[in-house]
Amino acid sequence: MKIITIGREYGSGGRTIGKLVADKLGIPYYDRELVDKAAKHSGLAVEAIEENDQVVTRSFLYDLAIGTSYGYVNSSGVPLDLNTQVFLAQREAILEFSQAPCVIVGRCADYILRDREDVLKVFIYADRKARLQRIVREYGEDPAKAEKLLAQSDKRRARHYEEFTDSIWGARRNYDLMLNSAAFGIDAAAEIICNLAK
Amino acid sequence: MKIITIGREYGSGGRTIGKLVADKLGIPYYDRELVDKAAKHSGLAVEAIEENDQVVTRSFLYDLAIGTSYGYVNSSGVPLDLNTQVFLAQREAILEFSQAPCVIVGRCADYILRDREDVLKVFIYADRKARLQRIVREYGEDPAKAEKLLAQSDKRRARHYEEFTDSIWGARRNYDLMLNSAAFGIDAAAEIICNLAK
Repeated sequence: MKIITIGREYGSGGRTIGKLVADKLGIPYYDRELVDKAAKHSGLAVEAIEENDQVVTRSFLYDLAIGTSYGYVNSSGVPLDLNTQVFLAQREAILEFSQAPCVIVGRCADYILRDREDVLKVFIYADRKARLQRIVREYGEDPAKAEKLLAQSDKRRARHYEEFTDSIWGARRNYDLMLNSAAFGIDAAAEIICNLAK
Repeated sequence: MKIITIGREYGSGGRTIGKLVADKLGIPYYDRELVDKAAKHSGLAVEAIEENDQVVTRSFLYDLAIGTSYGYVNSSGVPLDLNTQVFLAQREAILEFSQAPCVIVGRCADYILRDREDVLKVFIYADRKARLQRIVREYGEDPAKAEKLLAQSDKRRARHYEEFTDSIWGARRNYDLMLNSAAFGIDAAAEIICNLAK
C-alpha cells in the first residue's frame, strides 16, 4: 500500500500519528499544505480556502460576492458555491499527490481515493476523556473551552464529509483500519500503521 | 493485554481469526463452548440456551413455561425472562474465563469486560461482497440464501448487543481496534492482533 489516508476525531492525535508515519516511511505528509496547493489549482485566494476549510457554511451572499474568481462552474457555466470550489480544488490536489507514496490527513482523502487498491484507509479515534486531555495539553487550549471545541470540531468534520461524499464520517465501511489512539498511545499507533503499510 | 475479545460481522471471518490468534498465542479460545459452560452455571438446559443464543425473542409464554428451572430472579424473587437468564449465565462464564489469558468471540464480551485494562477489544468487519463470498465458500451456504443470512445475522447480533448493553454493536467507542478483514486477509488480521496483544 502506497498511500495512507488518515481520518480522525478532533484531539485523537491523528495529525501527529500521520506525521510520525510519514517520517518513519520517509514519504511526504499532507495536511495544511494541501490547502495551499489547492489554492494554486483553483485560483481561489488562500485566505478564502483557509476560512472555508472543512466548514460547510451556507453564506450564499458571500459566495456570490467572490463568485467571479471561481474556477469551477456547473454544466450551465454558473460558478459553484465556495465550499464546493474548495472541495474540488482539494480533490485535485489529492489526486495529484497520490501519484506517489504519501500520507494524507483529513480532506475526505479516503473517499476521493476509494477506488484505488494501493491505499490504506485509517481512522483514528479516542475516548472523550483522553481527547479532552490532549486538547488542553498539546493544543494549549483552556479546559473550559476544550469541551466546546471538541463538539464543534467533530460536528464540522462530520458535516463536511457528509456534504461531499455519499457516506458517513467515521463509519467503518470507509476504512481498512480504525484505531483507538488512547488504547495504544501515539507512537504505537504510528508503528501499527507503518507495519501494515509495508 | 491478556484477554482478547472479538466482535464481528457475520461472514467477516472473525471466528476464524479468533481461533488463529488463540493458536498463535497458545491460549484458549471460547465461542460455542461458552454456551455449555454457561448452561452448567445457570442450570438451564443446553438446548434452551442454544436456541436462544444471541436471539432476543419476546416469547413470554415460553419463558413462563420453563420458568421454574430458572437460576436468576429479580429482587422480588420472580424469575427473569429466558434471554436475560442466558445472558447472565454467559456473563458469569466470561468473567470466569477471563481470569486467565484467552480469546473470546462474541457474547458482548467487550462490554462485560469494559472496565478491565488488560483487555484488547477488537471488532472485525468486511465489505458486503467479501462477506457474501465467504458465506458461500466457507460456510457452504447457497448463494441465494447468503444475502438473507447476512442481513438476519447482523440484525440479530446488533439487537442482542443493544438489548444487554447500553451501547451500539460495532460502534467504535466500544473497541480498541477495528479491522476490515477483506483489506488484509484472515491470516494478516490474526497477525496484527497477535502483535498488538504482545
